[in-house]
Amino acid sequence: MEFNHGQEHVDDGMVIVQANLDDMNPEHVPYVTDRLLEAGANDVYWIPIIMKKGRPGLMLNVLVEEERLGQMEAIVFAETSTLGLRYMRASCHRLGRVMEKVETPWGPITVKAGYYQGRRVQFAPEFRECEQTARRHGVPLKEVYEEVRRAYSAEGGRR
Amino acid sequence: MEFNHGQEHVDDGMVIVQANLDDMNPEHVPYVTDRLLEAGANDVYWIPIIMKKGRPGLMLNVLVEEERLGQMEAIVFAETSTLGLRYMRASCHRLGRVMEKVETPWGPITVKAGYYQGRRVQFAPEFRECEQTARRHGVPLKEVYEEVRRAYSAEGGRR
Amino acid sequence: MEFNHGQEHVDDGMVIVQANLDDMNPEHVPYVTDRLLEAGANDVYWIPIIMKKGRPGLMLNVLVEEERLGQMEAIVFAETSTLGLRYMRASCHRLGRVMEKVETPWGPITVKAGYYQGRRVQFAPEFRECEQTARRHGVPLKEVYEEVRRAYSAEGGRR
Amino acid sequence: MEFNHGQEHVDDGMVIVQANLDDMNPEHVPYVTDRLLEAGANDVYWIPIIMKKGRPGLMLNVLVEEERLGQMEAIVFAETSTLGLRYMRASCHRLGRVMEKVETPWGPITVKAGYYQGRRVQFAPEFRECEQTARRHGVPLKEVYEEVRRAYSAEGGRR
Amino acid sequence: MEFNHGQEHVDDGMVIVQANLDDMNPEHVPYVTDRLLEAGANDVYWIPIIMKKGRPGLMLNVLVEEERLGQMEAIVFAETSTLGLRYMRASCHRLGRVMEKVETPWGPITVKAGYYQGRRVQFAPEFRECEQTARRHGVPLKEVYEEVRRAYSAEGGRR
Amino acid sequence: MEFNHGQEHVDDGMVIVQANLDDMNPEHVPYVTDRLLEAGANDVYWIPIIMKKGRPGLMLNVLVEEERLGQMEAIVFAETSTLGLRYMRASCHRLGRVMEKVETPWGPITVKAGYYQGRRVQFAPEFRECEQTARRHGVPLKEVYEEVRRAYSAEGGRR
Repeated sequence: MEFNHGQEHVDDGMVIVQANLDDMNPEHVPYVTDRLLEAGANDVYWIPIIMKKGRPGLMLNVLVEEERLGQMEAIVFAETSTLGLRYMRASCHRLGRVMEKVETPWGPITVKAGYYQGRRVQFAPEFRECEQTARRHGVPLKEVYEEVRRAYSAEGGRR
Repeated sequence: MEFNHGQEHVDDGMVIVQANLDDMNPEHVPYVTDRLLEAGANDVYWIPIIMKKGRPGLMLNVLVEEERLGQMEAIVFAETSTLGLRYMRASCHRLGRVMEKVETPWGPITVKAGYYQGRRVQFAPEFRECEQTARRHGVPLKEVYEEVRRAYSAEGGRR
Repeated sequence: MEFNHGQEHVDDGMVIVQANLDDMNPEHVPYVTDRLLEAGANDVYWIPIIMKKGRPGLMLNVLVEEERLGQMEAIVFAETSTLGLRYMRASCHRLGRVMEKVETPWGPITVKAGYYQGRRVQFAPEFRECEQTARRHGVPLKEVYEEVRRAYSAEGGRR
Repeated sequence: MEFNHGQEHVDDGMVIVQANLDDMNPEHVPYVTDRLLEAGANDVYWIPIIMKKGRPGLMLNVLVEEERLGQMEAIVFAETSTLGLRYMRASCHRLGRVMEKVETPWGPITVKAGYYQGRRVQFAPEFRECEQTARRHGVPLKEVYEEVRRAYSAEGGRR
Repeated sequence: MEFNHGQEHVDDGMVIVQANLDDMNPEHVPYVTDRLLEAGANDVYWIPIIMKKGRPGLMLNVLVEEERLGQMEAIVFAETSTLGLRYMRASCHRLGRVMEKVETPWGPITVKAGYYQGRRVQFAPEFRECEQTARRHGVPLKEVYEEVRRAYSAEGGRR
Repeated sequence: MEFNHGQEHVDDGMVIVQANLDDMNPEHVPYVTDRLLEAGANDVYWIPIIMKKGRPGLMLNVLVEEERLGQMEAIVFAETSTLGLRYMRASCHRLGRVMEKVETPWGPITVKAGYYQGRRVQFAPEFRECEQTARRHGVPLKEVYEEVRRAYSAEGGRR
């Protein structure tokens, strides 16, 4: 197994940026998401909402470090149709993270484990590697995913 | 009390028309709804969906008699951005309907009751009248609504 | 392991019953669901929709054998606020089902497996047993769930 | 009528805890909700969202007093699949509450009333009692609910 | 072209007021929205959520200046069924706004443009004028909308 | 301009395949969508639903020609967690389609136009080409999109 640590920590300097969009072509949504993530957003997600006059809109949400707020605003104003945005301060609690490799019939696949106060509470196969394996070997994705989880549990992981 | 009957019946000649929209300005949604209802749709509703490439779209649904299908299609193609639509046959079971007036401190308000096999199973204050009453008299809408229901129950309705 | 077969089959005599609700107290939703399932519905689910005048409503869906349509209608009219409903014919393709027990550190737990053309394509721990085990033994539910899946995979199931 | 007061107040020491989940089995959702409420959460709710790569996820929301934040985090990390969570400070304004009993043809049922600046603005039948009454007496739930509201209005409540 | 400036600015004194509703008639939603906007809310929107016991609810959101918080609370408690609400502080970044008229075959229509750091990043036809034009002249709304955008682009706007 | 015709037609041999999923990892959703489209589905979309016991699930929808039903079923059973699926017959009305190239400052970009009864009612820039252009030239996607629409309108398209 290989290791790749990330320490558990709390980050108090985060902001959540929000914009309500009722006149944007929804086709643009994945592109806007990618642009924000490439520019350093920690997370980007969209919430279906109902706006005034009964319009079904979308609320863009960007979680980002406060010092990158300006860069996010520039992208939101350039790439969406909004005339305004809002933001709130937030704190993030992130688990310690360890990447490990497990052996499978189709070769090694990475598992990401999460540690809370020194104890492993999460583990998940790296999705993209499972997807590539499923395509390359012509097996159902859920079978690859399941086998990685089984193999990781059997090895006992790095407790 | 006044009466205004509608017989309970089943109508087997209905269709549901659907179109998935991922590149339409959502601002247009209420307008499209109104246009379809004015042209004879029995009901129009929208469902938030997730389309290919992770695009958050909207599915337009129109419930209409089969003989009006062509008129609905003309509006859907003219007023939305879709390149295609689909439809399925459906049957509608509609309750008998009776409109009655009840007295309230703010004047008479209409109640619509629904009859299933001759027995009243539903009744609801006419929303628009309640709304106008709330605005005109400066009382909360839910108070008007509640009072109409209470008065109707007390009178016993037209069982 | 114990066995409990259900043959794979297609049932062409199903209907989907739908009602759009914009004036029902959402608190009643789980109760209506339970009543319909108790009376023989194969499945009951709700879809958030946007109705005319921009009202956020709920569409009730009931999947049921055509011969029970009348019973479902009686419940929908008695327990919801709708003045009408619609239905469409549908076919259901159901996998063969086998219930098996697997051993876990907390005792045996049932797994339900699904067979498509004689090959097992699905398996899932019985949710309620996992939940009871998690509560009784004070372990996270996802740990119980994972252990059942691991044990079932290790045993190879009844391929 | 019986009384059971709760004073109207504002509580500035609340937090909203949020976690975005795109790889959790949705079957676990009600269990996680129950666990958090049992451990002292004031409210727990879930929002359907669209996450990166077009994944339809769920955002868990927990409203809780700041001093219980640690307990909530322990449950979120143990029972969900998340590698991180975030929280924001919030203030809660809660109405004064009074529980009263009203007589119905099926026995007494509790009504919860809400007081804003000394004036009653809300009242609602206790859902669970209505549900039990409906089941025990074989009457539609909405009929029980309506009767409780009518009886409460007729008595005038404890204005 | 006519001008009507609004300066770009950041407003740190905003609050977001939220209430989760699981027992309110959704028919009242547009009315509550209108009442809050008339009383000075900057924005009002609704999010479909899943509440405890699997109830599909709605979360009301009101974005408003902190000094109007009391007025908003009075409306929320009077017009919805909630026994409590919460609020969080937020900052709003609003673009500079310029209203301009463009000529179309159906007469002049207003365009609202948004300026970020002195550069135009947004423009959108005034929806209500487009809608009235479409109705009056019997042309598809999207054709009116498109023509206004085209004419504005051709004129170059007020860069 | 180049041409590439597709005739307007109605296809009565379509089916809509549906499966309700309450225990599938949502991370797999885009993969399942891609697999179904690659195997010949006409459209694939997902609807957030509320299932029994208050579980937030997803309904998979596949629109496909009836003769490909078997292939779709094989993928649904292999790649999702469902133990059953259902299908309904549907008719599709597809507009005539013409692909045309328009000149822009960043090179030619394709526009897809839709014809209803011989009259053009739709046109839309090819999304992928706009996206590539935006990335390659470092301009906002919405600016590219707008310019393509403007250029197409100015040329008058192939009316």
